[in-house]
Amino acid sequence: MPLVKDGMWVGLGTGSTARWFILGLAERVRNGLTVRAVATSLASASLATVHGIDVEDLRADGLDLAVDGADSVNPALELIKGRGGAMLREKIVAASAARFVVIVDDSKYMSQLCGRVPVEVIRFGGARTLHALSERTSMDFTFRVGSDGEPFITDNGNLIADSEYTDVTDPVALAAEIGSVPGVAGHGLFVGMTDVVFVGHSDGSVEQLTAHGDTVA
Amino acid sequence: MPLVKDGMWVGLGTGSTARWFILGLAERVRNGLTVRAVATSLASASLATVHGIDVEDLRADGLDLAVDGADSVNPALELIKGRGGAMLREKIVAASAARFVVIVDDSKYMSQLCGRVPVEVIRFGGARTLHALSERTSMDFTFRVGSDGEPFITDNGNLIADSEYTDVTDPVALAAEIGSVPGVAGHGLFVGMTDVVFVGHSDGSVEQLTAHGDTVA
Repeated sequence: MPLVKDGMWVGLGTGSTARWFILGLAERVRNGLTVRAVATSLASASLATVHGIDVEDLRADGLDLAVDGADSVNPALELIKGRGGAMLREKIVAASAARFVVIVDDSKYMSQLCGRVPVEVIRFGGARTLHALSERTSMDFTFRVGSDGEPFITDNGNLIADSEYTDVTDPVALAAEIGSVPGVAGHGLFVGMTDVVFVGHSDGSVEQLTAHGDTVA
Repeated sequence: MPLVKDGMWVGLGTGSTARWFILGLAERVRNGLTVRAVATSLASASLATVHGIDVEDLRADGLDLAVDGADSVNPALELIKGRGGAMLREKIVAASAARFVVIVDDSKYMSQLCGRVPVEVIRFGGARTLHALSERTSMDFTFRVGSDGEPFITDNGNLIADSEYTDVTDPVALAAEIGSVPGVAGHGLFVGMTDVVFVGHSDGSVEQLTAHGDTVA
């Protein structure tokens, strides 16, 4: 049974998994499916539009479904996102959706979240906010640099501070710590948001995990 | 004893009270005081520079002192700020200061915070974030409009959503509710940040309130 049904408002993620989903959706649209989409990045908006998917602004009533990838997923379906730098728009879109579905390969699914935690930081006072983040979390943070050697700037015009590589033993507590620092506009910890995770295995099988701990092979 | 001592890094607020403070500080600078200042708005930066105060970027080590006004102050020294739309930069600056001093006239000092609570909202998905804020807080929010009839845009490039006029009975809880909505970049509730409040009375007397409840007439 396909995730996307006719007439749905659908959120499009950012990154390689989302790219795959957008291309698959575009094929169904060419075959007659009607959807209205909201994109989580300028890159995904462009990809969707080029392939014939209507991209619109996020309306007040939100979405029926949002589909995205993740950098790390744990059994509680908590996520680290943001390696592509779009995690704030991705979170706004995911939170607006009646159903938020995450698709990852099994290298991303772990007993405990781990990786760099990205934080979107207002440019004003950025050096100070970086310092405050490190103090609050007892982790080092560094500003992400783009391929041009300049500070990476998000679609929202902000900086990204990446934490050191870390195991996240308590995502709820870390999210609260990060969120309490003035100058933080968003971050890549997604807690209590995911409804379903599809984990793809190299043998082609797909495992479905729900927020209630069920596993459907 | 003046608040500002020679060699200090000082945060300059925004608004009518801050304007008065900046002009007074400029006079002392003309008389030989050395300070380095960080401004919480382009308007305050311009005012300070024109009057001979050095304005610099906020450094990682923060400030010795920040001085600002407020729209509402309660006996716990909690604040509502943001009528001028600069509350996010004001909060970054205040949080970076070893000492945060607020100056208000006695019309702003009340047993309970009241007013409109302003929230800085990322433009992407703004309509949805407004809806989510109303749902989360059970208050109506509306986007602020500038004098030109267009949406008010902050110095950080974001929108401002103002709550309906309200008594804030539990500022800590409301701050947590607002802060938990994806798309919120900051808000005008200042909780646990203020060290001293000076309350000016119409008879010219000034009352000094500290975070520990002392009153010095």
